Amino acid sequence: MKTRVSFSNASCDYYFDTSARRLEELVPRAKTVLVTDEHVFAHHQALFGDWNTIVLKPGEQYKVQETVNAIIDQLLDFEADRSWWIVGVGGGVITDLTGYVAGIYMRGLQFGFIPTSILAMVDASIGGKNGIDVGIYKNMVGLIRQPSFLLYDIDLLKSLPESEWINGMAEVIKHACIKDAPMFKLLEENTLAKLKRDKALLAQLIRRNALLKTKVVQADEFEQGERKLLNFGHTLGHAIENMYDLPHGHAVSIGMTVACHLSARLTGFTQTERVVDVLEKYGLPTYAVFDVDKAWDILKMDKKRAADAMNYILLNKIGQGIIQSIPLEGLQSLLIEFVTS
Amino acid sequence: MKTRVSFSNASCDYYFDTSARRLEELVPRAKTVLVTDEHVFAHHQALFGDWNTIVLKPGEQYKVQETVNAIIDQLLDFEADRSWWIVGVGGGVITDLTGYVAGIYMRGLQFGFIPTSILAMVDASIGGKNGIDVGIYKNMVGLIRQPSFLLYDIDLLKSLPESEWINGMAEVIKHACIKDAPMFKLLEENTLAKLKRDKALLAQLIRRNALLKTKVVQADEFEQGERKLLNFGHTLGHAIENMYDLPHGHAVSIGMTVACHLSARLTGFTQTERVVDVLEKYGLPTYAVFDVDKAWDILKMDKKRAADAMNYILLNKIGQGIIQSIPLEGLQSLLIEFVTS
Repeated sequence: MKTRVSFSNASCDYYFDTSARRLEELVPRAKTVLVTDEHVFAHHQALFGDWNTIVLKPGEQYKVQETVNAIIDQLLDFEADRSWWIVGVGGGVITDLTGYVAGIYMRGLQFGFIPTSILAMVDASIGGKNGIDVGIYKNMVGLIRQPSFLLYDIDLLKSLPESEWINGMAEVIKHACIKDAPMFKLLEENTLAKLKRDKALLAQLIRRNALLKTKVVQADEFEQGERKLLNFGHTLGHAIENMYDLPHGHAVSIGMTVACHLSARLTGFTQTERVVDVLEKYGLPTYAVFDVDKAWDILKMDKKRAADAMNYILLNKIGQGIIQSIPLEGLQSLLIEFVTS
Repeated sequence: MKTRVSFSNASCDYYFDTSARRLEELVPRAKTVLVTDEHVFAHHQALFGDWNTIVLKPGEQYKVQETVNAIIDQLLDFEADRSWWIVGVGGGVITDLTGYVAGIYMRGLQFGFIPTSILAMVDASIGGKNGIDVGIYKNMVGLIRQPSFLLYDIDLLKSLPESEWINGMAEVIKHACIKDAPMFKLLEENTLAKLKRDKALLAQLIRRNALLKTKVVQADEFEQGERKLLNFGHTLGHAIENMYDLPHGHAVSIGMTVACHLSARLTGFTQTERVVDVLEKYGLPTYAVFDVDKAWDILKMDKKRAADAMNYILLNKIGQGIIQSIPLEGLQSLLIEFVTS
């Protein structure tokens, strides 16, 4: 089931409900390198078969330049040239790394993704943002460059650990908060256990989220405005994620909780409790104690800063996110107030 | 004197015959970082004044990832955000590094160049190709992304060492060979000493070369065809450049000499002697002995390889370059024949 999506200077084919084995119809096996991590490789060995494969150590701590160097060395060993393809098979760390290397190796090869986690399916693999962390700064280096295809195989989720389901749900809840009130309701009415049992419901939810994010990206590929909404929960989230080595979804969930409180103060938002309830229902942390001063030092370097203000994402109501420019000073004192109270 | 040039998804303003001091009219001083090397910094201290400046060690051996890491760390120290500018002030190494970092830092900042060498003025700063070397492989990692402006100040050439004048002339002669027979004649009729004395002639020559390269790039920004012509002399040149630590122009000059001989065999080219004479007149080496086997191992990884053949640039006649696909095996034996005979 192919859906072709157009971006400003590229198009991407989305294959929903498709077996990962169909990869061989999309790329030439002899001129393709799959990039994955040890976990995914161990769980889906049949999928990798005799494809050229680069297997990385799993985890966000490897989303760094040293790993990029290692991938490039292996591409040279394969004698990969510009006619080759790179396909990332994995979660968000793998899609971020793969997209980035595909953008810079020989000034750019074609690439595609087979996302294997909820997070990668509904978020990381979509929209062309890629990159690596630099020290404590998340995604400080990277590109915006669209993959040629995304191949969605729900069966790959069978081996996903519970913690990764929870991690991915943070982005689903984020999408509902900023853009889709009916989906928020659907999340309130269901549970993670139900989603894991009901394959049709799950496929539908993933597709709905993939297309929601796609629509936002299409409207603003290079993040001049609208696309910033997708950073709901991420400004503070990114700051504390690497500080405390938190799962991405946990960090974003804490970030969304704080953003709800900021919204209550700045936009008159009144539904914080419903958001917190849904986050907790899907196993996510909400209220947390952290070192505000240290977080602030990282947060002020966020890519959404513009001079002395931060473009912060707030909610008017569930389903309606907005971008608000908050002076750095005011933002700092509000954060101190919420986190220490 | 501003000339606006359009590329596929960006435009670049060329300021010919303009004082470098006019930079302050183009970018906001408080949100700009200049990137340069110790030589350029020492020779043009007044130009840098109180601008935020990153000063790098000079030389091709620093066109590597470690330097990119160092630049990124310094941009973080400046708290540079997406609203900042990066301006490369220097030769080809500086423009390659600066363009690359500007492309990946925070997924892309605006950038411009003030080229300070002949090579950078007529070649490296034009067309958006940037990148770094990986081990023995030249420019193996990089992007194609256009600068917003190029500022040409001929007076900056005053401090350019003789060896760098010679280096740059290799690219001028290359342009003449592939595209501009009248310019080739002009080069035959003049000398480097004359060019250095006659500022008007020099300015005219630089402009002619900058616009020649620009036209080729505009026709084929992402190097599907025509733009490959600019690699005349570079396929072999790049292979031997890092092997023997040669100046870029020397390596390309040797590469052009070999390409003329290949052309004689494959296209019936009859003007090798005239090309060799001009190269030598401008101080460039032509015939050289090198380790063909070792060069071949590097050459076969060239970005212009497509499967089992190499897109090699040959001449039909002076002023008319062509792209010819040569099977790797045949190319290897021809190279062995020419270099060892």
